[in-house]
Amino acid sequence: MARDAGANQLFEIAFEQPSKGSRRSADSVYEQLRAAILDGRLVAGSKLPAERQSALFFGVSRNTVARAYTRLATEGLVQSRQGSGTYVAPKKKRSLRERAPSRQALDARLNAQWLRPELAQSLNFWHDSQPAKASKETGFLDFRPALVDSRLFPFEIFRRVSAKQLRRMELKPPVFKSPQGNRGHYPLREAIATHIGISRAVVCEPDDVLVTAGAQQAFDILARVLATPGVTTVAIEDPGYPPMRAAFLAAGAKVVPIPVDAEGLIVDALPASVQVVCVCPSHQFPLGVSMSAQRRSALLKAARKHGAVIIEDDYDGEFRYDGTPLQALRSNATVDDVFYVGTFSKCMLPALRLGFVVAPQWAMSALTLAKNCLDWHCPTLTQMTVARFIADGYLTQHVRKLRDVYRKRRDLIEEILHSDFADELSPMPSHYGMHVAALSNTSKRLKRASLRLLESNVHLHSFERYFFGEPTSEGLVFGYGAVDLKGIEQGLKALRRAL
Amino acid sequence: MARDAGANQLFEIAFEQPSKGSRRSADSVYEQLRAAILDGRLVAGSKLPAERQSALFFGVSRNTVARAYTRLATEGLVQSRQGSGTYVAPKKKRSLRERAPSRQALDARLNAQWLRPELAQSLNFWHDSQPAKASKETGFLDFRPALVDSRLFPFEIFRRVSAKQLRRMELKPPVFKSPQGNRGHYPLREAIATHIGISRAVVCEPDDVLVTAGAQQAFDILARVLATPGVTTVAIEDPGYPPMRAAFLAAGAKVVPIPVDAEGLIVDALPASVQVVCVCPSHQFPLGVSMSAQRRSALLKAARKHGAVIIEDDYDGEFRYDGTPLQALRSNATVDDVFYVGTFSKCMLPALRLGFVVAPQWAMSALTLAKNCLDWHCPTLTQMTVARFIADGYLTQHVRKLRDVYRKRRDLIEEILHSDFADELSPMPSHYGMHVAALSNTSKRLKRASLRLLESNVHLHSFERYFFGEPTSEGLVFGYGAVDLKGIEQGLKALRRAL
Repeated sequence: MARDAGANQLFEIAFEQPSKGSRRSADSVYEQLRAAILDGRLVAGSKLPAERQSALFFGVSRNTVARAYTRLATEGLVQSRQGSGTYVAPKKKRSLRERAPSRQALDARLNAQWLRPELAQSLNFWHDSQPAKASKETGFLDFRPALVDSRLFPFEIFRRVSAKQLRRMELKPPVFKSPQGNRGHYPLREAIATHIGISRAVVCEPDDVLVTAGAQQAFDILARVLATPGVTTVAIEDPGYPPMRAAFLAAGAKVVPIPVDAEGLIVDALPASVQVVCVCPSHQFPLGVSMSAQRRSALLKAARKHGAVIIEDDYDGEFRYDGTPLQALRSNATVDDVFYVGTFSKCMLPALRLGFVVAPQWAMSALTLAKNCLDWHCPTLTQMTVARFIADGYLTQHVRKLRDVYRKRRDLIEEILHSDFADELSPMPSHYGMHVAALSNTSKRLKRASLRLLESNVHLHSFERYFFGEPTSEGLVFGYGAVDLKGIEQGLKALRRAL
Repeated sequence: MARDAGANQLFEIAFEQPSKGSRRSADSVYEQLRAAILDGRLVAGSKLPAERQSALFFGVSRNTVARAYTRLATEGLVQSRQGSGTYVAPKKKRSLRERAPSRQALDARLNAQWLRPELAQSLNFWHDSQPAKASKETGFLDFRPALVDSRLFPFEIFRRVSAKQLRRMELKPPVFKSPQGNRGHYPLREAIATHIGISRAVVCEPDDVLVTAGAQQAFDILARVLATPGVTTVAIEDPGYPPMRAAFLAAGAKVVPIPVDAEGLIVDALPASVQVVCVCPSHQFPLGVSMSAQRRSALLKAARKHGAVIIEDDYDGEFRYDGTPLQALRSNATVDDVFYVGTFSKCMLPALRLGFVVAPQWAMSALTLAKNCLDWHCPTLTQMTVARFIADGYLTQHVRKLRDVYRKRRDLIEEILHSDFADELSPMPSHYGMHVAALSNTSKRLKRASLRLLESNVHLHSFERYFFGEPTSEGLVFGYGAVDLKGIEQGLKALRRAL
């Protein structure tokens, strides 16, 4: 009987068996125990394991368990018996809980938008329900795209620049930033305008730039300002970058997936009702293709015809290896139609949480208002430091270094794919960025191979999770931001075995 | 005739005459010129001032003006005549503009929410349309509440802690944060739980804490998650903190202002339909009063009766000077009904952009999803540094120091108000924080006094801007976060003259 089962066994039965590491990060111990008691997995009268055992089981500190037990006791869910231990309380004593509102009643207090499963799916798409078994110590090979190896970052320089900026801050008298000042530290907006002028031929003024907390906040602000809930039709690439789609779903837009082929977004598939088109023209996510010149001009024409605006996501456009350079969509001629989104997550560090939008002037005051309403402005020290880092030439230097490193990785992946996987996989042309995608030549489902690789501590995404609708193609995405040449060889050997 | 007027005179006529410093920060030179040309303030054929003169006029660099002129020329709005200068183009030549959509058409591309004047007013309430004449150099006395004097901050310590954390970051392998990990750096959530446990007697677990980009993002996330547009009724204090109201307006909530008296929010005025109540119980903004024990219990009772949740804004609760300490609303007994919002903007620096919500577990996954969707997480280095800063005891030390400094300032303000202004002003009891409010004893309008003070370089807010509806009382708000004892004496002398 469950109530007599040994302590650990009781827990093994009551809780699913995730790997040790994930227990703590998922829900709190308190929350897990409470749920198990309330839904009867831990029956009344059962003796809970001693705190030490519990701590081992959940992979948390004994202190955490002690606090969880105390809190459960306060709520009448468990009872502590002197010298004997802690027991699940009889049901009739759970007075506090009995009066507590049901999950349904609680959910009714929330905006239902945030309970939609597709929103959670889009935001959690990086992660697998079953995490890799490798601990942080033994390490795993992580081919997930958009992952950046911070170990290549010039921390020593950054530290020096940051310390100098902190000294400057110290001397400044207290002032309120103006609403426009909240658009971003002016020298940073100047540095951004110069940087993308050189690296991406995007000509703009500091006053066209809004500094955001990464590209994700740029998407969120654009979604909130451009989309009216239930009204605005937004076209997104499918497959595409799920968190961008999430921002528009959360804003209540009517999101329409548009297929992508080797030339990029299929413009003819845009509905006439479209008001916003989201697109990654330089390096499609996840296919890696660049949008052809014909498609670009067709897209601009279609947008003008429908009176739609374009959001150009240029997340890794700094890393161009070969191929004919194509202008950004946001060129001088399209100033009023295109919102250009960039980020420092790829060319510097995601941990900085800095990105930006280059926006048409007609939308700037609404965007500024939204930024003020959301969080006023990005942290000042980070902005000052990044501004100085760029102005002093360190960003250019770092990008040049990364470009060499990344090009070699990409070349190696393509080489191995051509030599060892020619029958099964066809790499798609990828002239930019930090990942290569490969289409399956057979109609073989690759999700299972991806799951098998996880057991060998290799993270390698198959296509299906990038689709909003039904997957229309099979393939694999090889991100090389965080895997070095040796890791690439190892990982692809493991893939060979898994296929 | 305007077209023959001297260059500077032309601009003086075409543009309003803000103080030099504010021109650049307001709109871009390009935007101002474009607007002036399009609406006819700068007539066709007028000669623009030379770049150097223009730069002086707008208080920007010559380079900025040169780029603005080039851009206007590209758009056909001005013409450059070799050796003669730059002229406003004849109307018929403005082909590009003529085809451009009207302001109305452009506004139709935006979510109308962001065009509501009350939203902009609520967010810009710190600022006066006519800024103080003082330049940064000559300085002014700034009594606006919520302003923090960064010169009291221990920058040297922060720099050391920050540098150490940067070294730790350098050694970390690249990983994706889990969605839960995005709730905030775990050691920071632990430090917050400990800090508010001690300073505010709020008992919570790290897993009850969501780290946000300041209190403003906490309000925005709560507004988006708790309010369904057009449906949810949200009660806010009136007078109150306008940017908090803005977050709920932007989320489409039905915002209902509730009056406040010397005991805090008037609970009886809550409508039966209320679903969210926003309140500052420890130190009302801007009146400075603490909510009485009777009102607190009435509020909790009313919330339970209506099935409403409470958002408790405790922005400066760390600074308590006297009076009976009252528990935070978010005590152990109200875990499931109260969202407790705190910030590091007052007790550390607003430039950090760090705050937090202590939330009930039933809402935590929706809030976490929203945080992920909005910007994933707050900048890692800032979070690590603040976590260490708190854990090493520096925050406690800094708060203790500030408390002494602030108490003296508050005492001096109250003393002068009692001795020199007894006929006109009655200071309200204020046991916490960084500002004191004083009610007018006469029915005299104080807005004019506030405006007159601005001319003497003193920023001192009168009440009316804190009201959502019609002001129901007259008074002044004395923020002392950024004015030292000498400044207080000077400022109040200036007030004496102005009344």
